Amino acid sequence: MLSLSKHGGFALGAAMSDDVNKRVLLRARPEGAVTADLFEVEGAPVPEPGARQMLIRVHYLSLDPAMRGWIADAPNYRDPVPLGALMPGFTVGEVMASRHPDYPVGTFVAGRQGWQEWAVSDGSDIDRKLDPEQAPVSTALHILGHTGLTAYLGLLEVGQPKEGETVVVSTAAGAVGSMVGQIAKIKGCRAVGLTGSDEKVRDCRDLYDYDAVINYKTAGDLVAALKEACPDGIDIYFDNVGGPISDAVLELINVHARIVVCGTMGIPADEATGPRPNRHILVKRARMEGFLVLDHMHRLEEAVAEMSDWLRQGLLAYREDVTNEIASAPSELVRLLEGGNTGKMLIRVYDDAD
Amino acid sequence: MLSLSKHGGFALGAAMSDDVNKRVLLRARPEGAVTADLFEVEGAPVPEPGARQMLIRVHYLSLDPAMRGWIADAPNYRDPVPLGALMPGFTVGEVMASRHPDYPVGTFVAGRQGWQEWAVSDGSDIDRKLDPEQAPVSTALHILGHTGLTAYLGLLEVGQPKEGETVVVSTAAGAVGSMVGQIAKIKGCRAVGLTGSDEKVRDCRDLYDYDAVINYKTAGDLVAALKEACPDGIDIYFDNVGGPISDAVLELINVHARIVVCGTMGIPADEATGPRPNRHILVKRARMEGFLVLDHMHRLEEAVAEMSDWLRQGLLAYREDVTNEIASAPSELVRLLEGGNTGKMLIRVYDDAD
Repeated sequence: MLSLSKHGGFALGAAMSDDVNKRVLLRARPEGAVTADLFEVEGAPVPEPGARQMLIRVHYLSLDPAMRGWIADAPNYRDPVPLGALMPGFTVGEVMASRHPDYPVGTFVAGRQGWQEWAVSDGSDIDRKLDPEQAPVSTALHILGHTGLTAYLGLLEVGQPKEGETVVVSTAAGAVGSMVGQIAKIKGCRAVGLTGSDEKVRDCRDLYDYDAVINYKTAGDLVAALKEACPDGIDIYFDNVGGPISDAVLELINVHARIVVCGTMGIPADEATGPRPNRHILVKRARMEGFLVLDHMHRLEEAVAEMSDWLRQGLLAYREDVTNEIASAPSELVRLLEGGNTGKMLIRVYDDAD
Repeated sequence: MLSLSKHGGFALGAAMSDDVNKRVLLRARPEGAVTADLFEVEGAPVPEPGARQMLIRVHYLSLDPAMRGWIADAPNYRDPVPLGALMPGFTVGEVMASRHPDYPVGTFVAGRQGWQEWAVSDGSDIDRKLDPEQAPVSTALHILGHTGLTAYLGLLEVGQPKEGETVVVSTAAGAVGSMVGQIAKIKGCRAVGLTGSDEKVRDCRDLYDYDAVINYKTAGDLVAALKEACPDGIDIYFDNVGGPISDAVLELINVHARIVVCGTMGIPADEATGPRPNRHILVKRARMEGFLVLDHMHRLEEAVAEMSDWLRQGLLAYREDVTNEIASAPSELVRLLEGGNTGKMLIRVYDDAD
């Protein structure tokens, strides 16, 4: 019944008896900032697939800003992760043993296997199969995955960019932001990035091809800096942060501006008040709209098809920020939430060279 | 050249020599709340129409919450009214003398003649001609005018109501709000009104047919009161106020809610901060969009046609709050901004019975 993986090259029976499945559980909810000690690592037996199930070895785990919301006990688009439960997360993995006819051994899959090394799945938590020859499988966790789809649909459908318009992007060097900037350029817009370090400013200029970049931490008067970078005002604001950065952007929006609300990482839990946007929205007849990629997963294949084309044409640069070892996921998440990463943050859970 | 009015029944020459054109000018900008002493009344000669012009006697002047924005030196959809200039405003008037071929004497017009008794016009500040037999001409300043169009397009196009949805309206008994509530009912929605006095609560129940009404001043816990009035959550919020009332509504919006930002009267100039809406907008994938009726004036005739039908079918109730004498406009505006009015606030500038 169980078969050898042509990729892993080891017998499953051995893995199941000798290996430990390292899993990261949520231990406590954040009070204020997220800290690594909210999580704990446990060693569990590698699970065994039942009928119509498969055993997946996780290769990559994606760390995402939204995870802050997942673990907080606050209104969200999903119930909070229960205390003591496996921390959820998007993953790329390889089928190592299978009793599922649609997923033979050796299949690479993008799914939601969470913060663990091994997972059993019946296919319901799989988003798509991957072709390792088309692109590195890790890209399924960023430009050819949720963040790519977020940038693609958030900008194109909510933002509705027209040639010659000015698009401002917050967390401009991040996984979503860098894609938004590049797609804006592909669509003939002026792309202006906001980011928080000189290193990221360089990435925005040299790698992601923004027309102008502002380091909001050193810019001083942010409204003045934006005014200089956006001589024709701001038509679209792709907002990954909220908070004081977005307050400044709102001062300069044009009539009929579109604000894509895609993240709120810039709003500290203890500073949830600020200038009310209503007056700007009314005076500029602007539209401010929330976008959650999970509503749009049925369009993933369509977006991946077009973005793969752009990737092959050399129009999309990306950067991965990879750390190995599942046990480092909690501290890496903290680094992500503190803005310490450059590019898409991944944990390489299984190192092929092992 | 000048001809007698068949309505007014007096010779223009007499009016021009004997009558004074009382005009209200803006004297100072508000610091905080609007007060009557920001305005002054002057007596000017009745003007004389030139070639392709007409002389209009103003019958009704509309007072609108937006006027607070017009006189403030803050970002707005129009330049602030200059100090010393005539205060602008929407009016209904009658052509008393004419050298304009399209506007014979006796024509009733809805236009923008401002806070004065007499005005000369070349037609560029006229919005439409009125048929006094169809409806009282004053209705061109509310349900068959800007406020009707605001409610009609704001609710139907921005709000996109679907049968069975819950629509919450702030300033529910006001000129716009009462129309929104009634159109929501016509479209098969549950209409819930927020208003600020027992008298207005009665109007909402008995006159405007809301399913539930909340007096936000006496409700205590507004979120709890809304929860009770909206057992299925809130799908559309027609927001005429902003501020703390809207903060409470946002707590209860459903996924894919629409928030029509139509006014910000509930945001005092000195309290422009509050809870940031971003998290609600993101989590609920909600849309918050500004609506300004002046963008949509080309659709006035279309909306008036349908709303006139509803009016004839007895589906639209309205209430006017009328004071005579142009000199009372400043203090009446203050009353409007303080929420002391019931229904559409009008100044009857010319009393037919005189």
